[in-house]
Amino acid sequence: MQIKEQKIKDFLDDLASKKPTPGGGATAALAGAMAAALVSMVAKLTVVKAKDKAERLRKELLLLADEDCQAFERVMQAYRTKKEEPGRLRKIQKALEEASQVPLETAEKSVAVVKLASDCVREGNQNAVSDARVALELATAAVYGALENVRINLESIKDSKFGEDIKEKIDNLLGCQDLKAG
Amino acid sequence: MQIKEQKIKDFLDDLASKKPTPGGGATAALAGAMAAALVSMVAKLTVVKAKDKAERLRKELLLLADEDCQAFERVMQAYRTKKEEPGRLRKIQKALEEASQVPLETAEKSVAVVKLASDCVREGNQNAVSDARVALELATAAVYGALENVRINLESIKDSKFGEDIKEKIDNLLGCQDLKAG
Repeated sequence: MQIKEQKIKDFLDDLASKKPTPGGGATAALAGAMAAALVSMVAKLTVVKAKDKAERLRKELLLLADEDCQAFERVMQAYRTKKEEPGRLRKIQKALEEASQVPLETAEKSVAVVKLASDCVREGNQNAVSDARVALELATAAVYGALENVRINLESIKDSKFGEDIKEKIDNLLGCQDLKAG
Repeated sequence: MQIKEQKIKDFLDDLASKKPTPGGGATAALAGAMAAALVSMVAKLTVVKAKDKAERLRKELLLLADEDCQAFERVMQAYRTKKEEPGRLRKIQKALEEASQVPLETAEKSVAVVKLASDCVREGNQNAVSDARVALELATAAVYGALENVRINLESIKDSKFGEDIKEKIDNLLGCQDLKAG
């Protein structure tokens, strides 16, 4: 079942269970989606142009929560293939690369939410400024949380060119001025 | 319908709608509950004593998400009573006080989650360290997000003794060493 179709209490039960997914990556994506939804609400009150962007990001982040689970499950599946199977190591590496790209995308989209939330704090309806600030806090947590998941996968990736590319992308993201220091 | 019974997509739709609740306070509480669920998962993997505490906090924070909506609705209701109605101002003040106490409790419980998540980062299963770190980020966002909601209500509260008490409690919370600077 897709995460968006789950009841909140069931999602939390799954999260709290020993099952490997959903884990931190999906949680970060969902936090980003919640932040985007709050931005959307504030933007609707103030006719800020942020609304459509926030709605798009919310949907994309919610899908990334599922993709994160799937990517992690593929990593575990790759590790479980028999040691003697040809191409096993390449399969593991490919799965790990994908499992770093999904949370990187979560972080990128959450940075976009951070920017929209900052716009709303500065220019939005001041009756909803606390909502915009909660969105900013949550989107920031989504960025740093997602990057934790990128980094942990990078540790097992042997292709140094791939690793360098990802690190450069992370540095670019962390350069966002609206992001609090992590 | 209680928030925990809602489908995630429906909760996000409500959040993104112009409706005043759920808003930032409920979102902060839910973020705290998600962080507590992640802590619980990590604690189960490592038999850390944190598990029971995290489970309790998750349930309490999830209830606080509903209480936040109700408290805010009572504030709006109080403001809507006719200007000439006796005790109107006192009714508004009482509703505002309650609407600051709910997010304060969210912040207090989220600080407790921050501490558990920090324990898990330090002492937990290192295979789940990224999950513990996501929990730490999210619980921190829940603390600061909830406090935004306390502060916005305090601005309209006239009882200076009440205000001072709350501010002292906030200062105590912010003294938690595991909390990143806000």
